[in-house]
Amino acid sequence: MLPLLDVVRDDLDIVERELYAVLKSNNQLLTESSSHLFRAGGKRLRPALALLSAKFYNYDLQKVLPLAMALELVHLATLVHDDVVDGAELRRGIPTVKARWGNKVSVHTGDYLLAKAMILVSVYRSPVIIGVLAHSCVKMCEGEIIQFAGLNQCDLRDYLRRIKYKTALLIQAACQLGAVATGAPRELYKPLGRFGHCLGMAFQITDDILDMVADQKRLGKPTGGDLRQGIITLPVMLALARSPEDGRLAALVNKTEKTAEDVREAIRLTKEYGGVDLAFQVADQYLDKAHGYLKMLPDIPARENFARVTDFVRVRTY
Amino acid sequence: MLPLLDVVRDDLDIVERELYAVLKSNNQLLTESSSHLFRAGGKRLRPALALLSAKFYNYDLQKVLPLAMALELVHLATLVHDDVVDGAELRRGIPTVKARWGNKVSVHTGDYLLAKAMILVSVYRSPVIIGVLAHSCVKMCEGEIIQFAGLNQCDLRDYLRRIKYKTALLIQAACQLGAVATGAPRELYKPLGRFGHCLGMAFQITDDILDMVADQKRLGKPTGGDLRQGIITLPVMLALARSPEDGRLAALVNKTEKTAEDVREAIRLTKEYGGVDLAFQVADQYLDKAHGYLKMLPDIPARENFARVTDFVRVRTY
Repeated sequence: MLPLLDVVRDDLDIVERELYAVLKSNNQLLTESSSHLFRAGGKRLRPALALLSAKFYNYDLQKVLPLAMALELVHLATLVHDDVVDGAELRRGIPTVKARWGNKVSVHTGDYLLAKAMILVSVYRSPVIIGVLAHSCVKMCEGEIIQFAGLNQCDLRDYLRRIKYKTALLIQAACQLGAVATGAPRELYKPLGRFGHCLGMAFQITDDILDMVADQKRLGKPTGGDLRQGIITLPVMLALARSPEDGRLAALVNKTEKTAEDVREAIRLTKEYGGVDLAFQVADQYLDKAHGYLKMLPDIPARENFARVTDFVRVRTY
Repeated sequence: MLPLLDVVRDDLDIVERELYAVLKSNNQLLTESSSHLFRAGGKRLRPALALLSAKFYNYDLQKVLPLAMALELVHLATLVHDDVVDGAELRRGIPTVKARWGNKVSVHTGDYLLAKAMILVSVYRSPVIIGVLAHSCVKMCEGEIIQFAGLNQCDLRDYLRRIKYKTALLIQAACQLGAVATGAPRELYKPLGRFGHCLGMAFQITDDILDMVADQKRLGKPTGGDLRQGIITLPVMLALARSPEDGRLAALVNKTEKTAEDVREAIRLTKEYGGVDLAFQVADQYLDKAHGYLKMLPDIPARENFARVTDFVRVRTY
């Protein structure tokens, strides 16, 4: 969990406890598989953002709790399903659901997490909350399919759309829907949503940077995963644009089957050509914008916590 | 589509058209993968049941349309995901999404269908509709996991629970929620729900029978699939209980790797020992009960159509 959110610290512990409880099924295997990844930890970023958002109007944990839980479950579902399709073996430092129980169990476990999220949000008589959450889910699938269909493609606009769909929309939803759940006035939706969008974009960019430069142990999974799968992310894209004419980086990136040495060398060149630094600069632009939108919000302690999350995204190592 | 539903025939055509429209995505691949199975046809049983259910109170297509569509999308999602995990190659007579595009696309396509269903039902300000639908989804996952965890197991109570979760609950939801969507009084929920439960149980039992005895071409997929996967269904269970002491059927059923000849022989013995006939008798008991619950409902043309569906389940060949 993020250590910097004093305003919602205690309530996040309750979210955590309730999530454990809600994942309990009569079926032992399903209880284990669905809580497996959850137990491994994680930042709980989306629930935290939803609680902070709810602080902007008549805060009531009971009103925002189902939403906060649902956001984490949707996030977990996408992780479990991503691991199915990618055949990944490690996530958060432990074997993936797929590695431990196989594809069959993983697909149904992901569906189970999604359906549990849907049960949770069914208590809201608000087409906005359920609709925005569902819309984010639709777009996340589109983002994954765009990524799949665009393997080895290198287009900045496509990249930005892909990370918006894959990551930013759900984070935006978290930042916005917390306030919706407490019945906040509409004027708050826009700055909260824009803040979430910028935060989410920066979050995915630093995720893509970490995939190249992180300490493997701290990251909880092998680095270079994107390159291995043929996914060209921002650092590589920017490095390619500045690479010398020898075409060494392009040749490595475009290899269908990459050795561990190919991946290491591609990462080295990406750094050498300034791709990582430039990607950080793009992330910084989003984070500056995020801070800008925060200034449009009332100056309450939750706003300070939002600002801390924003700064964390820049310096995070996991 | 089922040919016997004159009361809702025209509106089912509208459901069909709207489903085509809703599956259109900006992404060509996702549009194709998500409508692939849908285009191959199907009975559209769940939308039909929802529309018929809505006929029992202040029928208004606009009120029940999102629900009817969502039910079909949820059903399609489970089929697409089942094909991922089972590695199936044929469904409804055409290659599965998995066979055509691989696991990656299939998992995201199934999630896309689920999320689209969620968007559709988000218009209802009714925790009952969204909650019951989500609850059915949770139970469907549990059913699949129970089936997976109980491979090669032979317990009648487990079987009945499994088919309730896998199939009957969503059919029950369809029969009940149509009336909920039009604002029908609570007295109608119970007979509609019980009717749907019995219909759904019988539907899955005849499905399991068809998996053994159907004409492969009419069924749209190879027969004997359950046996090959180690799933013991009602006909085999009942045949085993009456099989002679030589244990031939049990030996075949328990083989981990079955040849095509093993499967054929197991089906032959299942029939010879009366397993298929007995399974039909169990299905008949559910169908009789279903007719019984229908009698508790107002005698309107939709009730007659419900009765026709009930009779169809007994004689269906696909």
